[in-house]
Amino acid sequence: MKKELFKGSIFLNPVPAVIITSKNREGKVNAFTVAWIGTVCTNPPMLSISIRPERLSYEYIKETMEFTVNIPNKYQVREVDYCGVVSGRKINKIEQLNLKIENGYHISAPFLVDLPINIECKVKTIIPLGTHDLFIAEIQGTHIDKSLIDEKGKIHFEKANLISYSHGEYFPVEKMAIGQFGFSISKNKIINEKFKHIKFYEEYRKDKKKRKKILKKHKK
Amino acid sequence: MKKELFKGSIFLNPVPAVIITSKNREGKVNAFTVAWIGTVCTNPPMLSISIRPERLSYEYIKETMEFTVNIPNKYQVREVDYCGVVSGRKINKIEQLNLKIENGYHISAPFLVDLPINIECKVKTIIPLGTHDLFIAEIQGTHIDKSLIDEKGKIHFEKANLISYSHGEYFPVEKMAIGQFGFSISKNKIINEKFKHIKFYEEYRKDKKKRKKILKKHKK
Repeated sequence: MKKELFKGSIFLNPVPAVIITSKNREGKVNAFTVAWIGTVCTNPPMLSISIRPERLSYEYIKETMEFTVNIPNKYQVREVDYCGVVSGRKINKIEQLNLKIENGYHISAPFLVDLPINIECKVKTIIPLGTHDLFIAEIQGTHIDKSLIDEKGKIHFEKANLISYSHGEYFPVEKMAIGQFGFSISKNKIINEKFKHIKFYEEYRKDKKKRKKILKKHKK
Repeated sequence: MKKELFKGSIFLNPVPAVIITSKNREGKVNAFTVAWIGTVCTNPPMLSISIRPERLSYEYIKETMEFTVNIPNKYQVREVDYCGVVSGRKINKIEQLNLKIENGYHISAPFLVDLPINIECKVKTIIPLGTHDLFIAEIQGTHIDKSLIDEKGKIHFEKANLISYSHGEYFPVEKMAIGQFGFSISKNKIINEKFKHIKFYEEYRKDKKKRKKILKKHKK
């Protein structure tokens, strides 16, 4: 694989694209989109978002130290984009987009009811980095669309039609998994059978034609 | 949309899954997988990864304050998984998986040649959070597979077959974008034509049958 070297820049892809809701002290609500988000700790459960200080949501979140992460599905990508490019200083985006909100359970910020996953967070630390400040927050609770939960209580995010953001574009995530955590060393027959067509790269490299064949088989 | 409330837990999905390479002071190299990663600042370009202190890579990176993020494609998902579940204390994963490495340009840690994107990073701050420490790092340079760059110098990550990690499973990202940054308010005719079939959720909500129809149209 021949490579070209680029200067330091943002090439981590794909990343999530989510709508953040927050409420200021006066009770005003805003929604804006971030892609600079990540899980930062398993226990206590924490995530971080990065925000430019010029943003209205920066003010709101700094006032109350609370926000909610709303994860969209692929039918909501226009809303995601709109909340990322239009400022809450000019337009009430929630009204404009007719987004239904409901009061948070653990925090004062509301969540977007029609987005399948809503994660309520309390900010613990804010670290200025440059163009963006990093908000590190503890997860208080999560609302998940009931239709994604089976009778055994297992959550099926693969049915949620989630999206990814990559280099300026939004993409759906495919529905069929090509592996699960630990499958590469699994001794479980069901897991091994399920992913037996997924090879080590070594094998794909040996035979480029095989790659496409395996891929086609997977799509069926 | 009816919701079920869960306790604070990790429900941010989908996220990237990448292989991190690092080299300790003695020159030993290790590779391990993280999903707790995110972009944290645009300028200076920065990203963060979270690592458990028990990990061998935690030691290596703390020693040299350098690491490389290697972004895999869907043919490398077995390697990704293997590097996440097998410890470098027991097995030399790079040798075992026959991963080709090359020396970094800006840092001492090597990168994985066959993974399409490699981001060289220098750690600026380490913040202990709980089970994980957050490593905030500045991006020094990025190697990108030449076959992803067109004659005008535009990078096509949509051709890279990148993957996402969601709730314990690995998924391919679809090739066709369903929107691009700013498309929801664009006045550019080409962009508007390209994404005219992508509606606001409001419209999908009105007519569930329409959702599927629009989707099918998109797939063609």
